[in-house]
Amino acid sequence: MNPLTSPLLTDLYQLTMLQAYFAHRMQDTAVFEFFVRKLPPTRNFMFAAGLEQVLDFLEQLRFDDDDLAWIAQHGQFRKNFVEQLRGLRFTGDVYAMREGTLFFPNEPILRVVAPMPQAQLVESRLINLVHFETTIASKAARSVLAAPDKLLVDFGLRRAHGAEAGLLAARASYIAGFSGTATVLAGSMFHIPLFGTMAHSFVEAHDDEASAFVDFATVFPDSTIFLIDTYDTEAAARKVVALAPQLQQAGIAIRGVRLDSGDLAAHARNVRSIFDQAGLTNATIFASGNLDEYRLRDLLAAGAPIDGFGIGTSLVTSSDAPFLDAVYKLQEYAGRPRRKRSPGKATWPGRKQVYRHYSDQGLLDHDVVTLEDDVQAGTPLLQPVMLGGKRLQAPPSLDALRAHAKRELATLPRDLRALDGDVEPYRVEIAPALRELAARLDKQRREPGTAE
Amino acid sequence: MNPLTSPLLTDLYQLTMLQAYFAHRMQDTAVFEFFVRKLPPTRNFMFAAGLEQVLDFLEQLRFDDDDLAWIAQHGQFRKNFVEQLRGLRFTGDVYAMREGTLFFPNEPILRVVAPMPQAQLVESRLINLVHFETTIASKAARSVLAAPDKLLVDFGLRRAHGAEAGLLAARASYIAGFSGTATVLAGSMFHIPLFGTMAHSFVEAHDDEASAFVDFATVFPDSTIFLIDTYDTEAAARKVVALAPQLQQAGIAIRGVRLDSGDLAAHARNVRSIFDQAGLTNATIFASGNLDEYRLRDLLAAGAPIDGFGIGTSLVTSSDAPFLDAVYKLQEYAGRPRRKRSPGKATWPGRKQVYRHYSDQGLLDHDVVTLEDDVQAGTPLLQPVMLGGKRLQAPPSLDALRAHAKRELATLPRDLRALDGDVEPYRVEIAPALRELAARLDKQRREPGTAE
Repeated sequence: MNPLTSPLLTDLYQLTMLQAYFAHRMQDTAVFEFFVRKLPPTRNFMFAAGLEQVLDFLEQLRFDDDDLAWIAQHGQFRKNFVEQLRGLRFTGDVYAMREGTLFFPNEPILRVVAPMPQAQLVESRLINLVHFETTIASKAARSVLAAPDKLLVDFGLRRAHGAEAGLLAARASYIAGFSGTATVLAGSMFHIPLFGTMAHSFVEAHDDEASAFVDFATVFPDSTIFLIDTYDTEAAARKVVALAPQLQQAGIAIRGVRLDSGDLAAHARNVRSIFDQAGLTNATIFASGNLDEYRLRDLLAAGAPIDGFGIGTSLVTSSDAPFLDAVYKLQEYAGRPRRKRSPGKATWPGRKQVYRHYSDQGLLDHDVVTLEDDVQAGTPLLQPVMLGGKRLQAPPSLDALRAHAKRELATLPRDLRALDGDVEPYRVEIAPALRELAARLDKQRREPGTAE
Repeated sequence: MNPLTSPLLTDLYQLTMLQAYFAHRMQDTAVFEFFVRKLPPTRNFMFAAGLEQVLDFLEQLRFDDDDLAWIAQHGQFRKNFVEQLRGLRFTGDVYAMREGTLFFPNEPILRVVAPMPQAQLVESRLINLVHFETTIASKAARSVLAAPDKLLVDFGLRRAHGAEAGLLAARASYIAGFSGTATVLAGSMFHIPLFGTMAHSFVEAHDDEASAFVDFATVFPDSTIFLIDTYDTEAAARKVVALAPQLQQAGIAIRGVRLDSGDLAAHARNVRSIFDQAGLTNATIFASGNLDEYRLRDLLAAGAPIDGFGIGTSLVTSSDAPFLDAVYKLQEYAGRPRRKRSPGKATWPGRKQVYRHYSDQGLLDHDVVTLEDDVQAGTPLLQPVMLGGKRLQAPPSLDALRAHAKRELATLPRDLRALDGDVEPYRVEIAPALRELAARLDKQRREPGTAE
């Protein structure tokens, strides 16, 4: 069994809701939208991601015999409900922003239009996928902004929250502009370029460091990057210099070194100088070890001669903002707009569209959120991607999404590029048509007998 | 394909290291240990978790034809290496602390003893599993300490970092003392009790709230818990009271209500009072919505009459400390202890054991970390769990692990139970035998010609 595609990857209350919907024949069309209510303090924008995983999930949705047997024996569910689940498929429509599109609070990035039981059942997994990839793409973009011309590699699998987090973090960060990942399975599943050097344990397993370097280089003559911080970084750099003639004679080119601890700026300068004096001017310096976008910015501001960075834990856990206030809310049922009014959690009702407006320089100026049928000027960001349960197009390549994300980042005004918060938030207008609908619904609800 | 069991769930450098180890016939026995270097500021202790997932992974480890074909075409690997991988199985030994055991920085909780290529290859996934479950069990224990007599339910799937995070968070929090989870697949995979109520969308899809309550209750007459915050919490509580006679006549017992927004303490008091005046004294009040251990503590300190809590995002992302400084380090190779000396990342060499000492009251007093062959008084915490690639025992039930964790929590001294940091850290002594070995290794390394 592959748990990642199981229809039981949902909350119990989705199944109880489904039994109630079936029992009461509430199978009219429901419209749910996914959006983020507000930004974490250190974020000025978000990058939409995770759509293709959602479409895969919707296309594959079905209960097999084992799933149904488990539900039947659970005790809370009726026999005829279990049989209704057997035939359940996702037959609805999905509208979404393209992955790698910048977005802001209160803007729907994905809309599901489907018979109520289908639209309800998929809530948990849909949020699970889009929330996580969006969180990571948004985090990764910050390193791309901090070090736009450097090689950036995801090193995070080991401290990602489980296997799927490692795989999807590799995907999301690649879309956002990372150069690749160290996670082999992400390379094989998503065709993301793979990067890797050598391990401390390899050095330690040798009785001396120079032998470890030689043993590594002879096996990988074309991709020799030495890890040089196991004992003493500068001493190891000198060992590399001493080995260089012997390696070059054997046809081995020293591509570079990796630093993983200590004062990276100081070590990088020392190593650069040791290498340059020895004529190893082409050998690159790659740094890793508790890095994040702030350290990248500081290292580059300090002029550290570092060519690339491996970023792990802070990226894949989005450690400064490990979640977004992301939700998937009912906006319409049976042709009527719906609105939740819980304090601090009220929603804008109806099917919505987001229109983007640019400055003369092609930078983001402001967005307008309005009802789908309130057609406006500006670039509409939500497009149909699935109709009747079928994708409208084959999944785009990650490289196409990455190119789109790169164009999107180029539209970010200077203020929003800051790593620290405290900037004027991007302007997202709620159009009059949407405000009027919300007010009308509230009024109906305050006058019992009209709607309630 | 089930990605969660793939041997490609590793970092590229593990495969490059393996090719080098095979090429140089470095297949002697390696000893790696997993430990946490230091605690996050808000943690005073950790709960070991994830061992059974690691043992599953080690037992199942093998490269199938598709994996090998992918490696062969990648370009960095030799044909004979790919054939060597075909035969690779995990044939080593594992020593570990039982899941649900309290532990502290610098204490190994898991040791792998295996031929070097095997022990190296599994590093990424082993850390990925143990790090995450330990992070979550340690976080969950704090809610258990804050609300020891309340029903605590994991509500986190939707904002967990991918599917596996949702599943393993349910498992880890159950071990730590939670009552159950809302995640259906975690219930079916791990036999964790499932909890669920109703959704806002169900209420909103009805034209009035009372009809939604009736529709829900008639389908679930034995497990009727109403969600009452969609529009106005107290008004909804009064609707429940008004419906009670009609429901009771139909044989439906109102088990309780859930509050999900607003001032939970005030709403709980109001609802309790409305229910008690109406004779619904048995109806329980369950709360959810952006909860964590601090809010639990404050709600209970304020005397809020809440019987249970659903805890989601903060739990499954361990939002205040989304990662631990957890590593898996080479401690011995080919019979010789090894030590990494990178600044801030130096390790204690050799195969180690942790001895625990208790006060006369049965509370934790201090631990001693020493070499395995330096047998001491106290309770040794690491035990063999796998020998020659085979588990020594069938996996324990989660209920057995949960009972163990509960006994462990009872040994926590008062100071370490505090939710805030700033307490005197628990005493972990490094035994003289271990210090002497580390000093001897450093000395050898400083005198070139002796070891290097």
